Amino acid sequence: MLSRIDHIGIACHDLDATVEFYRSTYGFEVHHREVNEEQGVREAMLRVNGTDDGGATWLQLLQPLREDSPVGKWLARHGEGVHHIAFGTDDVDAEADAVRGRGVRVLYDAPRRGSMGSRITFLHPQDCHGVLTEIVTAAAPDAARGHSAH
Amino acid sequence: MLSRIDHIGIACHDLDATVEFYRSTYGFEVHHREVNEEQGVREAMLRVNGTDDGGATWLQLLQPLREDSPVGKWLARHGEGVHHIAFGTDDVDAEADAVRGRGVRVLYDAPRRGSMGSRITFLHPQDCHGVLTEIVTAAAPDAARGHSAH
Repeated sequence: MLSRIDHIGIACHDLDATVEFYRSTYGFEVHHREVNEEQGVREAMLRVNGTDDGGATWLQLLQPLREDSPVGKWLARHGEGVHHIAFGTDDVDAEADAVRGRGVRVLYDAPRRGSMGSRITFLHPQDCHGVLTEIVTAAAPDAARGHSAH
Repeated sequence: MLSRIDHIGIACHDLDATVEFYRSTYGFEVHHREVNEEQGVREAMLRVNGTDDGGATWLQLLQPLREDSPVGKWLARHGEGVHHIAFGTDDVDAEADAVRGRGVRVLYDAPRRGSMGSRITFLHPQDCHGVLTEIVTAAAPDAARGHSAH
């Protein structure tokens, strides 16, 4: 079951400038930063609200590490904006199998590492009415909620 | 204060086909349908999760009523996909004034009617790193949560 909007992924040219825009305009603060070499992005996670499945909904700001990365190529074509949306679930493997069985192309054979130790996969936007769609299982309930482990 | 992701607005060519995609692929059901003549859209609201501010997060599927409406023109340029994101607040007037005061262009002089009796305004995407951003106050707590009044 997909039990929440986990995050909205927003591609930008300058992560620090975009973080500052979301802080100064709306008051959203950075909860977590990381570099994901496999995905080719530098990212910041801004927590917006908690969700009734015990998780949270985030803004994920993404700056490509390289122009030839998927997000870099997307930015060159589209400019800054919403890159993908992500649904949270407690079982990304089962959900990926289920949607594959319904004829939707799943981009990874097995889930890969996402933000904050999560496991993620993506669905082909051409099979999802133009929306690049991620399915994500958080690393642990505390991580899903945005609470620190220490 | 912006206290939740209220919805993700997704533009599509065929509302019924897109509703059926979200139902058959993920199990999301339509909670509400309406036509908003002022916005020039036919829409369906799919509830994804409740939020810790007492509201909910929705997918808002949007089909333009006319090719020359804002969503119609957007679709012709971009194709189907994420059209906007919306932050929920209990005071859209105050939030609109606040972001205007921070130099962000607000598209309406006063909030207009949105889904399910809500009051909405939009921020210029060029001032928001490419993201067409809506601010919304739900009509009533029950409407925000997605509970029926009867």
